[in-house]
Amino acid sequence: MQLTETRKIITHRAVMAMLDAGIAKAEEMGQPQCIVIVDASGEVLGEIRMTGAKFLSRKSALAKALTAASTGAASNAVPEGVRSAIGAATGGLVTGLPGGLPIILDGKAAGGVGVGSGTGEQDIAVAEAMLAVLV
Amino acid sequence: MQLTETRKIITHRAVMAMLDAGIAKAEEMGQPQCIVIVDASGEVLGEIRMTGAKFLSRKSALAKALTAASTGAASNAVPEGVRSAIGAATGGLVTGLPGGLPIILDGKAAGGVGVGSGTGEQDIAVAEAMLAVLV
Amino acid sequence: MQLTETRKIITHRAVMAMLDAGIAKAEEMGQPQCIVIVDASGEVLGEIRMTGAKFLSRKSALAKALTAASTGAASNAVPEGVRSAIGAATGGLVTGLPGGLPIILDGKAAGGVGVGSGTGEQDIAVAEAMLAVLV
Amino acid sequence: MQLTETRKIITHRAVMAMLDAGIAKAEEMGQPQCIVIVDASGEVLGEIRMTGAKFLSRKSALAKALTAASTGAASNAVPEGVRSAIGAATGGLVTGLPGGLPIILDGKAAGGVGVGSGTGEQDIAVAEAMLAVLV
Repeated sequence: MQLTETRKIITHRAVMAMLDAGIAKAEEMGQPQCIVIVDASGEVLGEIRMTGAKFLSRKSALAKALTAASTGAASNAVPEGVRSAIGAATGGLVTGLPGGLPIILDGKAAGGVGVGSGTGEQDIAVAEAMLAVLV
Repeated sequence: MQLTETRKIITHRAVMAMLDAGIAKAEEMGQPQCIVIVDASGEVLGEIRMTGAKFLSRKSALAKALTAASTGAASNAVPEGVRSAIGAATGGLVTGLPGGLPIILDGKAAGGVGVGSGTGEQDIAVAEAMLAVLV
Repeated sequence: MQLTETRKIITHRAVMAMLDAGIAKAEEMGQPQCIVIVDASGEVLGEIRMTGAKFLSRKSALAKALTAASTGAASNAVPEGVRSAIGAATGGLVTGLPGGLPIILDGKAAGGVGVGSGTGEQDIAVAEAMLAVLV
Repeated sequence: MQLTETRKIITHRAVMAMLDAGIAKAEEMGQPQCIVIVDASGEVLGEIRMTGAKFLSRKSALAKALTAASTGAASNAVPEGVRSAIGAATGGLVTGLPGGLPIILDGKAAGGVGVGSGTGEQDIAVAEAMLAVLV
């Protein structure tokens, strides 16, 4: 195994475009959202709390983004049987709540988006609209 | 004294416009920045970490934004003689570092912006460009 | 009762050999892992996050290592009926998740290893490969 | 500006080789050390606490690694005049203590190493021995 590998990262231009797309989708639905975008190591790249969104949803949106970035899968793909135990062991950072989707570039997790304040379906729809910016 | 008063708040449209303006100024300067916007209670409304910005500056940018929102004045207006003591008593959240400016609407603090990763002058210039969106 | 007793501790040479053995086992399985080793007081002696491992598993691997070092038993030996209550009372540090094994020297707990990112069976297999270094 | 960029990362093979090199240098000096390696976003990749090292130096070694990774420069390059204020505003994570060096790959910060328990010169010497693995 070699000492270094190459990874793609998203720029702040991509982050702003994703926030714009998420806001547009949320406004279309009439459901204000908290939106968080993290990088491949879970460090926040950008976030927005829309007017009228639940302010505590900033925390759940972050957990959803972290879960998706860490696992490389949707947050609600965490198996139900282990959600409670893994959530506790990670200080609540691993969550099975819907609304977290991984950012996959060249087959590797480059980060995650997390959305919270609406129903699970609404949160996922906003996250999907954000990822569509990258394709 | 009456039981209620009215305050102006900034919407997420204003937050996104301020982030766009801050990014544009930072790109013009060639100095990537961490930018944080908080409301009148210090709760984060939006933030962006530009590609190449120092990731620890997210924390100092937040402290600058909080200081400005809390005091209704620029972060570097905190008197030098009390900076160390107030910083310690607030867990580092009150800072005298330059780059934090209050968002004033109708004479009341409606929040604050904090910018960090550049020199003090660069941080302030980006914060000023962000506030210019509101006038 | 006498005023002092003697305990065996593991050196950093042992810690590095255990990390090497854990990595070798994880690579053989094709499952990157987060691996943490703590001493008899729960203070971290060493850790590694393998390329491609889930970064949040650093936290659960630490909880597993702490649980094993504290109890002197495998983390998944925590009785199911008390896991939730003890986990809550310890801020998530006691966990019943599999992948934590105690380091026993002369019949006393000298620390613990915790492994996370794979299935429970994979995590335990890596932990066992690490302990095999000490026999 | 494009939506994605490319970065080099270090693999866990590099992390283990760097830990080995740091330990060898510290043993040669007869000064046990705490050694931490973080990635470009400050997330820990690996660490070791050598037998006899000061256990609280884990925390200062982490701060040194984070400072170097965030700024892309040696931790002791933080200007003396701002150390106290920036340290306070970042919860102690930005430090001017010697012993933190950035990991630079293709001209970009790919992480940082932090070393603590010895004199400043000893800490730097160990950090330099670790970086030599990558050239």
